[in-house]
Amino acid sequence: MRTNFGAKPWFYPLPVLIVGTYNPDGTADAMNAAWGGLYDAGKVVLCLSKDHRTTANILARKDFTISFADAAHTVSADYVGMVSGNSEPAKMQKAGFHTSKASTVDAPLIDELPVALECRLLKVNEDGNIISIFLLCRRPAAECCGPVWRMHPQ
Amino acid sequence: MRTNFGAKPWFYPLPVLIVGTYNPDGTADAMNAAWGGLYDAGKVVLCLSKDHRTTANILARKDFTISFADAAHTVSADYVGMVSGNSEPAKMQKAGFHTSKASTVDAPLIDELPVALECRLLKVNEDGNIISIFLLCRRPAAECCGPVWRMHPQ
Repeated sequence: MRTNFGAKPWFYPLPVLIVGTYNPDGTADAMNAAWGGLYDAGKVVLCLSKDHRTTANILARKDFTISFADAAHTVSADYVGMVSGNSEPAKMQKAGFHTSKASTVDAPLIDELPVALECRLLKVNEDGNIISIFLLCRRPAAECCGPVWRMHPQ
Repeated sequence: MRTNFGAKPWFYPLPVLIVGTYNPDGTADAMNAAWGGLYDAGKVVLCLSKDHRTTANILARKDFTISFADAAHTVSADYVGMVSGNSEPAKMQKAGFHTSKASTVDAPLIDELPVALECRLLKVNEDGNIISIFLLCRRPAAECCGPVWRMHPQ
Protein backbone atom coordinates (compact mmCIF):
# COMPACT_ATOMS: atom_id res chain seq x y z
CA MET A 1 0.00 0.00 0.00
CA ARG A 2 1.45 3.33 -1.05
CA THR A 3 0.59 6.73 0.33
CA ASN A 4 0.03 9.73 -1.90
CA PHE A 5 2.19 12.63 -0.72
CA GLY A 6 1.20 15.01 -3.51
CA ALA A 7 3.63 16.59 -5.94
CA LYS A 8 6.66 16.75 -3.64
CA PRO A 9 10.21 17.27 -4.92
CA TRP A 10 11.50 14.26 -3.06
CA PHE A 11 14.58 13.01 -4.80
CA TYR A 12 17.00 11.13 -2.62
CA PRO A 13 19.78 11.00 -1.91
CA LEU A 14 20.81 14.39 -3.28
CA PRO A 15 24.14 16.16 -3.02
CA VAL A 16 24.28 19.47 -1.15
CA LEU A 17 25.76 21.80 -3.75
CA ILE A 18 27.77 24.76 -2.51
CA VAL A 19 28.29 27.14 -5.42
CA GLY A 20 31.35 29.38 -5.10
CA THR A 21 31.68 32.67 -7.01
CA TYR A 22 33.55 35.94 -6.80
CA ASN A 23 31.68 39.17 -6.15
CA PRO A 24 32.38 42.24 -8.31
CA ASP A 25 34.83 43.49 -5.65
CA GLY A 26 36.77 40.22 -5.70
CA THR A 27 35.54 38.85 -2.39
CA ALA A 28 34.24 35.31 -2.33
CA ASP A 29 30.61 34.26 -2.06
CA ALA A 30 28.92 30.89 -1.77
CA MET A 31 25.38 29.60 -1.76
CA ASN A 32 23.64 26.31 -1.16
CA ALA A 33 21.79 25.36 -4.37
CA ALA A 34 18.89 22.99 -3.97
CA TRP A 35 18.23 22.33 -7.65
CA GLY A 36 21.11 21.31 -9.81
CA GLY A 37 22.87 18.28 -11.15
CA LEU A 38 24.53 16.56 -14.05
CA TYR A 39 23.22 17.53 -17.48
CA ASP A 40 24.23 15.62 -20.58
CA ALA A 41 27.82 14.46 -20.80
CA GLY A 42 30.24 16.73 -19.02
CA LYS A 43 27.76 19.45 -18.14
CA VAL A 44 26.02 20.76 -15.06
CA VAL A 45 22.66 22.49 -14.71
CA LEU A 46 21.86 24.95 -11.94
CA CYS A 47 18.31 26.24 -11.47
CA LEU A 48 18.87 29.55 -9.68
CA SER A 49 16.57 32.53 -9.26
CA LYS A 50 17.76 35.72 -10.86
CA ASP A 51 17.82 37.59 -7.57
CA HIS A 52 20.66 35.55 -6.11
CA ARG A 53 24.02 37.23 -5.89
CA THR A 54 25.47 33.96 -7.14
CA THR A 55 23.43 34.22 -10.34
CA ALA A 56 24.71 37.73 -11.04
CA ASN A 57 28.26 36.65 -10.24
CA ILE A 58 28.09 33.70 -12.63
CA LEU A 59 26.68 35.83 -15.43
CA ALA A 60 29.39 38.44 -14.85
CA ARG A 61 32.49 36.23 -14.55
CA LYS A 62 31.16 33.08 -16.28
CA ASP A 63 32.96 30.89 -13.77
CA PHE A 64 32.01 29.09 -10.58
CA THR A 65 32.84 26.09 -8.48
CA ILE A 66 30.58 23.42 -7.04
CA SER A 67 31.67 21.83 -3.78
CA PHE A 68 29.80 19.00 -2.12
CA ALA A 69 28.95 19.65 1.50
CA ASP A 70 29.60 16.86 3.96
CA ALA A 71 28.16 16.05 7.35
CA ALA A 72 31.00 17.81 9.14
CA HIS A 73 29.97 21.13 7.60
CA THR A 74 26.19 20.92 7.87
CA VAL A 75 25.86 24.17 9.83
CA SER A 76 28.04 26.16 7.42
CA ALA A 77 26.30 24.67 4.38
CA ASP A 78 22.90 25.53 5.84
CA TYR A 79 24.00 29.06 6.70
CA VAL A 80 25.07 29.92 3.16
CA GLY A 81 21.69 28.68 1.97
CA MET A 82 19.75 30.83 4.43
CA VAL A 83 21.64 34.12 4.29
CA SER A 84 22.16 36.20 1.15
CA GLY A 85 25.43 37.86 0.27
CA ASN A 86 23.27 40.77 -0.88
CA SER A 87 22.45 41.62 2.72
CA GLU A 88 25.34 40.13 4.71
CA PRO A 89 28.81 41.28 3.57
CA ALA A 90 30.51 39.01 6.12
CA LYS A 91 28.59 35.94 4.95
CA MET A 92 31.62 33.75 4.30
CA GLN A 93 33.34 34.63 7.55
CA LYS A 94 30.13 33.99 9.50
CA ALA A 95 29.73 30.68 7.69
CA GLY A 96 33.21 29.68 8.75
CA PHE A 97 34.28 29.03 5.17
CA HIS A 98 37.70 29.94 3.81
CA THR A 99 38.51 29.99 0.12
CA SER A 100 41.34 29.65 -2.37
CA LYS A 101 41.23 30.60 -6.03
CA ALA A 102 40.52 27.67 -8.34
CA SER A 103 43.21 26.75 -10.83
CA THR A 104 41.20 26.64 -14.06
CA VAL A 105 38.38 29.11 -13.43
CA ASP A 106 37.95 32.56 -11.92
CA ALA A 107 36.07 31.35 -8.87
CA PRO A 108 36.80 30.34 -5.28
CA LEU A 109 37.16 26.82 -3.92
CA ILE A 110 35.89 26.26 -0.39
CA ASP A 111 38.90 25.06 1.60
CA GLU A 112 36.77 23.13 4.09
CA LEU A 113 35.00 21.00 1.45
CA PRO A 114 37.29 18.37 -0.06
CA VAL A 115 35.67 17.66 -3.43
CA ALA A 116 34.82 20.29 -6.01
CA LEU A 117 34.11 20.81 -9.68
CA GLU A 118 35.49 23.85 -11.47
CA CYS A 119 32.82 25.05 -13.89
CA ARG A 120 32.46 27.53 -16.74
CA LEU A 121 29.18 28.97 -18.01
CA LEU A 122 28.19 27.62 -21.38
CA LYS A 123 24.80 29.28 -21.74
CA VAL A 124 21.54 30.16 -20.06
CA ASN A 125 18.98 27.85 -21.58
CA GLU A 126 15.40 28.43 -22.69
CA ASP A 127 14.13 27.93 -19.15
CA GLY A 128 16.54 30.43 -17.66
CA ASN A 129 18.79 27.79 -16.17
CA ILE A 130 22.56 27.90 -16.06
CA ILE A 131 24.25 25.27 -18.19
CA SER A 132 27.98 24.89 -17.67
CA ILE A 133 30.76 22.58 -18.58
CA PHE A 134 33.05 21.40 -15.84
CA LEU A 135 36.74 21.59 -16.38
CA LEU A 136 38.16 19.82 -13.44
CA CYS A 137 37.22 17.62 -10.52
CA ARG A 138 39.42 18.05 -7.50
CA ARG A 139 39.53 15.96 -4.42
CA PRO A 140 42.14 15.13 -1.84
CA ALA A 141 43.54 11.69 -1.20
CA ALA A 142 40.88 9.03 -0.73
CA GLU A 143 41.63 8.53 2.95
CA CYS A 144 40.54 12.10 3.66
CA CYS A 145 36.97 11.71 2.51
CA GLY A 146 36.08 8.03 2.45
CA PRO A 147 32.68 8.22 4.16
CA VAL A 148 31.21 10.87 1.90
CA TRP A 149 31.59 8.59 -1.12
CA ARG A 150 29.38 5.87 0.33
CA MET A 151 26.17 5.82 -1.65
CA HIS A 152 24.20 3.44 0.51
CA PRO A 153 24.17 4.18 4.22
CA GLN A 154 23.58 1.11 6.32
CA MET B 1 46.62 19.61 -1.28
CA ARG B 2 44.05 18.72 -3.91
CA THR B 3 44.46 16.26 -6.73
CA ASN B 4 43.28 17.01 -10.25
CA PHE B 5 41.11 14.19 -11.51
CA GLY B 6 40.23 15.82 -14.84
CA ALA B 7 36.71 16.56 -15.99
CA LYS B 8 34.92 13.74 -14.17
CA PRO B 9 31.16 13.69 -13.61
CA TRP B 10 31.57 13.07 -9.90
CA PHE B 11 28.49 14.31 -8.16
CA TYR B 12 27.71 12.63 -4.87
CA PRO B 13 25.59 11.37 -3.41
CA LEU B 14 23.25 10.79 -6.35
CA PRO B 15 19.97 8.93 -6.49
CA VAL B 16 19.74 5.84 -8.67
CA LEU B 17 16.80 6.65 -10.92
CA ILE B 18 14.77 3.76 -12.28
CA VAL B 19 12.53 5.09 -15.05
CA GLY B 20 9.40 3.02 -15.65
CA THR B 21 7.49 3.13 -18.95
CA TYR B 22 5.08 1.03 -20.97
CA ASN B 23 6.16 -0.46 -24.28
CA PRO B 24 3.88 -0.13 -27.33
CA ASP B 25 2.46 -3.61 -26.59
CA GLY B 26 1.58 -2.63 -23.03
CA THR B 27 4.33 -4.56 -21.29
CA ALA B 28 6.43 -2.72 -18.72
CA ASP B 29 9.99 -1.55 -19.19
CA ALA B 30 12.46 0.14 -16.85
CA MET B 31 15.91 1.62 -17.15
CA ASN B 32 18.54 3.02 -14.83
CA ALA B 33 19.11 6.67 -15.76
CA ALA B 34 22.45 8.13 -14.74
CA TRP B 35 21.72 11.75 -15.61
CA GLY B 36 18.59 13.29 -14.27
CA GLY B 37 17.30 15.33 -11.40
CA LEU B 38 15.12 18.14 -10.18
CA TYR B 39 14.64 21.02 -12.62
CA ASP B 40 13.02 24.25 -11.55
CA ALA B 41 10.08 23.99 -9.19
CA GLY B 42 8.08 20.83 -9.62
CA LYS B 43 9.89 19.52 -12.68
CA VAL B 44 12.30 16.77 -13.52
CA VAL B 45 14.96 16.60 -16.24
CA LEU B 46 16.13 13.34 -17.78
CA CYS B 47 19.10 13.29 -20.15
CA LEU B 48 18.47 10.16 -22.21
CA SER B 49 19.90 9.10 -25.55
CA LYS B 50 17.37 8.76 -28.35
CA ASP B 51 18.16 5.09 -28.88
CA HIS B 52 16.78 3.99 -25.54
CA ARG B 53 13.48 2.18 -25.57
CA THR B 54 12.56 4.32 -22.58
CA THR B 55 13.00 7.49 -24.63
CA ALA B 56 10.70 6.22 -27.35
CA ASN B 57 8.17 5.07 -24.76
CA ILE B 58 8.12 8.46 -23.05
CA LEU B 59 7.69 10.30 -26.33
CA ALA B 60 4.86 7.95 -27.32
CA ARG B 61 2.83 7.83 -24.09
CA LYS B 62 4.13 11.07 -22.46
CA ASP B 63 4.11 9.39 -19.06
CA PHE B 64 6.68 7.68 -16.89
CA THR B 65 7.58 6.97 -13.30
CA ILE B 66 10.84 7.51 -11.44
CA SER B 67 11.59 5.12 -8.62
CA PHE B 68 14.63 5.42 -6.39
CA ALA B 69 16.66 2.26 -6.14
CA ASP B 70 17.80 1.21 -2.69
CA ALA B 71 20.64 -0.97 -1.48
CA ALA B 72 18.41 -4.05 -1.30
CA HIS B 73 17.83 -3.90 -5.07
CA THR B 74 21.31 -3.05 -6.29
CA VAL B 75 21.54 -6.07 -8.61
CA SER B 76 18.16 -5.44 -10.22
CA ALA B 77 18.85 -1.74 -10.60
CA ASP B 78 22.20 -2.46 -12.22
CA TYR B 79 20.66 -5.04 -14.53
CA VAL B 80 18.07 -2.65 -15.99
CA GLY B 81 20.91 -0.20 -16.65
CA MET B 82 23.04 -2.74 -18.47
CA VAL B 83 20.46 -4.56 -20.60
CA SER B 84 18.22 -2.92 -23.19
CA GLY B 85 14.56 -3.76 -23.61
CA ASN B 86 15.25 -3.48 -27.33
CA SER B 87 17.21 -6.73 -27.23
CA GLU B 88 15.83 -8.54 -24.16
CA PRO B 89 12.04 -8.98 -24.16
CA ALA B 90 12.14 -10.61 -20.72
CA LYS B 91 14.16 -7.75 -19.21
CA MET B 92 11.79 -7.04 -16.34
CA GLN B 93 11.37 -10.67 -15.37
CA LYS B 94 15.12 -11.22 -15.47
CA ALA B 95 15.61 -8.10 -13.34
CA GLY B 96 13.23 -9.49 -10.77
CA PHE B 97 11.03 -6.42 -10.92
CA HIS B 98 7.24 -6.55 -10.78
CA THR B 99 5.03 -3.61 -11.68
CA SER B 100 1.63 -2.06 -11.05
CA LYS B 101 0.02 0.69 -13.07
CA ALA B 102 0.47 4.13 -11.56
CA SER B 103 -2.65 5.98 -10.49
CA THR B 104 -2.16 9.32 -12.23
CA VAL B 105 -0.07 8.45 -15.27
CA ASP B 106 0.02 5.76 -17.93
CA ALA B 107 3.22 4.16 -16.67
CA PRO B 108 4.27 1.32 -14.38
CA LEU B 109 5.41 1.60 -10.76
CA ILE B 110 8.09 -0.86 -9.66
CA ASP B 111 6.56 -2.84 -6.82
CA GLU B 112 9.92 -3.57 -5.20
CA LEU B 113 10.97 0.11 -4.90
CA PRO B 114 9.03 1.95 -2.21
CA VAL B 115 9.29 5.59 -3.31
CA ALA B 116 8.33 6.88 -6.74
CA LEU B 117 7.34 9.99 -8.64
CA GLU B 118 4.62 9.83 -11.27
CA CYS B 119 5.70 12.07 -14.14
CA ARG B 120 4.22 13.55 -17.32
CA LEU B 121 6.22 14.86 -20.26
CA LEU B 122 6.09 18.62 -20.57
CA LYS B 123 8.50 19.09 -23.47
CA VAL B 124 11.80 18.10 -24.97
CA ASN B 125 14.05 21.10 -24.47
CA GLU B 126 16.59 22.75 -26.76
CA ASP B 127 19.26 20.26 -25.72
CA GLY B 128 17.07 17.24 -26.43
CA ASN B 129 16.40 16.53 -22.79
CA ILE B 130 13.10 15.42 -21.36
CA ILE B 131 11.45 17.95 -19.07
CA SER B 132 8.47 16.68 -17.11
CA ILE B 133 6.27 17.73 -14.31
CA PHE B 134 5.65 15.31 -11.51
CA LEU B 135 2.15 14.72 -10.38
CA LEU B 136 2.54 12.57 -7.36
CA CYS B 137 5.10 11.28 -4.92
CA ARG B 138 4.25 7.94 -3.46
CA ARG B 139 5.92 6.16 -0.64
CA PRO B 140 4.88 3.60 1.90
CA ALA B 141 4.78 4.17 5.62
CA ALA B 142 7.97 5.66 7.04
CA GLU B 143 8.92 2.55 8.94
CA CYS B 144 9.31 0.67 5.68
CA CYS B 145 12.08 2.77 4.24
CA GLY B 146 13.75 4.70 7.04
CA PRO B 147 17.38 4.10 6.11
CA VAL B 148 17.13 5.25 2.52
CA TRP B 149 16.14 8.74 3.64
CA ARG B 150 19.33 9.33 5.59
CA MET B 151 21.36 11.88 3.71
CA HIS B 152 24.55 11.70 5.73
CA PRO B 153 25.98 8.25 6.34
CA GLN B 154 27.96 8.04 9.57
